Amino acid sequence: MAKQINGIAASNGVAIAKAYKLITPDLSFDKRTIDDVQVEKSRLEAAFLASKADLEKIRDKAAASMGNEAAEVFTAHIMVLEDPEFTGGIEQAIESDAINAEAALQQVADMYIALFEGMADSNAYMAERSADIRDVTKRILSHLLDKRLPNPALIDEEVIIVAHDMTPSDTAQLDRRYVKGFVTDVGGRTAHAAIMARTLEIPAVVGTEVATDSINEGDTLVLDGMDGVVIQDPTEQTVAEYQAKADAYAEQKVEWAKLKDQKTLSADGQHFTLAANIGTPKDLTGVLENGAEGIGLYRTEFLYMDSQELPDEEAQFEAYKSVLEGVEPDENVTIRTMDIGGDKKLPYLPLPEEENPFLGYRAIRLSLGRSDIFRTQLRALIRASAFGNLWIMFPMVATLPEFRAARDIFNEEKAKLVAEGVAVSDNIKLGIMVEVPAAAVLADKFAQEVDFFSIGTNDLIGYTMAADRGNDKVSYLYQPYNPSILRLVDSVIKAAHKYGKVAAMCGEMAGDPIAVPILMGMGLDEFSMSATSVLPTRSLMRQLDASKLQTLAEKAIEADTSEDVVALVKANVPEIK
Amino acid sequence: MAKQINGIAASNGVAIAKAYKLITPDLSFDKRTIDDVQVEKSRLEAAFLASKADLEKIRDKAAASMGNEAAEVFTAHIMVLEDPEFTGGIEQAIESDAINAEAALQQVADMYIALFEGMADSNAYMAERSADIRDVTKRILSHLLDKRLPNPALIDEEVIIVAHDMTPSDTAQLDRRYVKGFVTDVGGRTAHAAIMARTLEIPAVVGTEVATDSINEGDTLVLDGMDGVVIQDPTEQTVAEYQAKADAYAEQKVEWAKLKDQKTLSADGQHFTLAANIGTPKDLTGVLENGAEGIGLYRTEFLYMDSQELPDEEAQFEAYKSVLEGVEPDENVTIRTMDIGGDKKLPYLPLPEEENPFLGYRAIRLSLGRSDIFRTQLRALIRASAFGNLWIMFPMVATLPEFRAARDIFNEEKAKLVAEGVAVSDNIKLGIMVEVPAAAVLADKFAQEVDFFSIGTNDLIGYTMAADRGNDKVSYLYQPYNPSILRLVDSVIKAAHKYGKVAAMCGEMAGDPIAVPILMGMGLDEFSMSATSVLPTRSLMRQLDASKLQTLAEKAIEADTSEDVVALVKANVPEIK
Repeated sequence: MAKQINGIAASNGVAIAKAYKLITPDLSFDKRTIDDVQVEKSRLEAAFLASKADLEKIRDKAAASMGNEAAEVFTAHIMVLEDPEFTGGIEQAIESDAINAEAALQQVADMYIALFEGMADSNAYMAERSADIRDVTKRILSHLLDKRLPNPALIDEEVIIVAHDMTPSDTAQLDRRYVKGFVTDVGGRTAHAAIMARTLEIPAVVGTEVATDSINEGDTLVLDGMDGVVIQDPTEQTVAEYQAKADAYAEQKVEWAKLKDQKTLSADGQHFTLAANIGTPKDLTGVLENGAEGIGLYRTEFLYMDSQELPDEEAQFEAYKSVLEGVEPDENVTIRTMDIGGDKKLPYLPLPEEENPFLGYRAIRLSLGRSDIFRTQLRALIRASAFGNLWIMFPMVATLPEFRAARDIFNEEKAKLVAEGVAVSDNIKLGIMVEVPAAAVLADKFAQEVDFFSIGTNDLIGYTMAADRGNDKVSYLYQPYNPSILRLVDSVIKAAHKYGKVAAMCGEMAGDPIAVPILMGMGLDEFSMSATSVLPTRSLMRQLDASKLQTLAEKAIEADTSEDVVALVKANVPEIK
Repeated sequence: MAKQINGIAASNGVAIAKAYKLITPDLSFDKRTIDDVQVEKSRLEAAFLASKADLEKIRDKAAASMGNEAAEVFTAHIMVLEDPEFTGGIEQAIESDAINAEAALQQVADMYIALFEGMADSNAYMAERSADIRDVTKRILSHLLDKRLPNPALIDEEVIIVAHDMTPSDTAQLDRRYVKGFVTDVGGRTAHAAIMARTLEIPAVVGTEVATDSINEGDTLVLDGMDGVVIQDPTEQTVAEYQAKADAYAEQKVEWAKLKDQKTLSADGQHFTLAANIGTPKDLTGVLENGAEGIGLYRTEFLYMDSQELPDEEAQFEAYKSVLEGVEPDENVTIRTMDIGGDKKLPYLPLPEEENPFLGYRAIRLSLGRSDIFRTQLRALIRASAFGNLWIMFPMVATLPEFRAARDIFNEEKAKLVAEGVAVSDNIKLGIMVEVPAAAVLADKFAQEVDFFSIGTNDLIGYTMAADRGNDKVSYLYQPYNPSILRLVDSVIKAAHKYGKVAAMCGEMAGDPIAVPILMGMGLDEFSMSATSVLPTRSLMRQLDASKLQTLAEKAIEADTSEDVVALVKANVPEIK
């Protein structure tokens, strides 16, 4: 019988396909005494072969989607499978102890893991080997137990993924040909998984709480990423209704696509820059397809997170250069220096555990504390500046001395490169991400020293409301339209303009239909968002009269509550559906 | 040889005494086969007797300092010692297994612990019994091993405590007759231990990082809580110098004491209210001794934290009433509703683990979510209102709807009590603690609905700077004088005055000599602080011309950095030493 699951609308679109559950099965087993050694050995061999086939498929997909370096971990897994000592050890345990293959495998694996972990303190390589053995053992066990250990790379038919959450490495491997949508138990509109879904243009519903419990492998699902609804075992009529909705959305997209090469002009002819946020150079494809006018936020931390060690200057230079070259010559690329720390950890850069990581040692704080890492990134950026219009943005700046310290380091590295005879642009812009309330409150002071602001609304809202948007209990306080947020945004824009500087926004709010008219009224210069939001936003902006929106913005910052602002916008901007 | 340890000056005063290390000794032991059962039994008996003597002393001190209920846990410990099954079991293990008393004790204790923990899921009482056995076993072991298990209650000579950190229960038991000061490895000026040290007027140095490593039990120490210095094994000359400093400080205190019954007037005759922050009704003694003009912050969470279950309406009523009756009839008492959650957890009120507890489900968020608990507190408050001038303050309010919801619940409970014929004041003030940046930014809206503001600077600074003050790596961002903070404070005060409301401050900043002249210039009405800061602050205020400080405040909010503000104040206010 049809059953409806409600969640948070995370990425637009409608999908109809079978459920593919991305959850680890129960791999527990009983240790048994066996009679026939040969049977166990054959079971073991079959499981090894099947595991190898899996891992080769996963490796090839990973290499295609994330590059050879990211795929190396799977090569290491395959090497474990091919290690004669490992297989020999398990076979011997089956023989000498007369135990089943599962127990023998676990016994030998545990021995290796203990051995490697004993050496892990002094040797990061050993710690990795131990993790490899664990992962491979899980996969072999799954085949011995005849259970499916799911992996996005193993999907080869049209499905909707059902998961507790999607990790960055899960989303990196999604193949749009097969994955038609996903639904998760946890997360919100601004969580990583949701942002990735929009980047990949895969419809998604998140935060359902019950999806993995309620949905069975292979269930037919209808997923509506606009309304945040998943229907399990739909009736034919429901399928037909949603198919119609999917078609209408596809038509809408065709309409939007016509705006791809249009300038972003309001109805009264005022120009706004509509840029896109990206995580890796690969995302440029989506940016070009969606007609964004430059990159308003390139999150460089993926360079660090997708690597097994600190990325060197050359690797960074290549990445930055490819993005600068990937946009039109008159378009800008804003590259944010690494926002590591907080919830973004690097296995090879141990940081102290923190009680409140969002209020901790991250982003510019870490960059100034570890200027060796920061200088490498700045050198790569400065070298890349010769290939386009580079804007460098420092994240999490709270005080002027922090900005000044970062600027001094930038100037030192630039001078060194010039002295070395390296070609660099003389027109690199330096700005800050306005996401710490202190910087927003002091924007008129910062505006006298920076070239631009980009308001990072996700964190700015979190800090201003003192609420972690990832925490279900307080997520109601994540209020982009709260007048306190609008006041800070307005004062940042006014401060920038007072000193002739650019005011941009690169948070989720920049592509939010309720916020866009207010931000136009405030005179925000650049709106940067997920590539897939660019065309819908351009379409909306072209219908609006910017000069009339100034009054709307003035009223919004004088409203009492978030709810009042929403009502105000809806009453005054009928173009918003 | 004399050795200097530097830390954070946490509480004024100078102390010279021997070190008493408050750290758990190594209680590991070897299991031995024994020949003489009687010897082991005698050792066991001696250890039991010594443990009982310890626990009786600890219980009596706890009862005197924290009340009978808090002392009950030690009575339970003594009952474990007196349980014939427990002692009998250990003796039997010594006999039948021929093992030493340590091993027999551990064996029997482990059995009991396993037994109780098996039942703990369904029974909170059993979980407590298991904790009791653990604690008692530690103490018996310490006597068997002839090691000292330190406890503040066991101190009976003049000492300086050396600890990694001081917990609330450690500080609650400090006896000022014997404990002349303390020094810790961790913590900052605004951490619990530091605040308690100032309340108790015990000089303290915190955050030394090395104190417990560097100092040995019994070392002679000089501790300077003004400069944050501890000198280990001082020379005679050093002792003499610091004795002189101690004497000068004592003289200074005599001078301050003369101001006890004086009004708080600036040099040009402007009146400011100097109130005190308290945690429990007991703290009233310090408030009266120091001539505070009312209570600016009564932190009611200790009622919840010092209890084994939710405090009932009657217990709360008694506590609130005693505080309201404890001040002069013309003085006000601001009582903050429970600020539970975040780092303040209750064993009997399980809350979900949070990744960022400071940005989580706490204070008014929890009160509105658990209105059953909130209503009980409000009823107790409203009933107590008949006994003084009650101001009720809601913590962590971020939005107007939150304040309105709290006010509605207050009005409902008040109406019920009136209908029940209970005497209540018709002049209860309702206000908010301004500590979430959103509330500060929207202060002009809040000012139209609340009766008063009290600025909670500790958290306001933390959120505005997006820095956890408890995190060493980012504590440099805890900047009370940052112009962004000063701007928010100024706009809150202006908003209050625009609508004829009172602007108070109850964070650490209110008693900070650098901040005081600026806050006077801004026209802050009430300054609430640790009782021990009241007289020094009154002394400073009497020397300052408030009308001239307005210009100073205007300049401070136009400064670039925290450092610039400090320089500005020092240049313009020579009265600050």
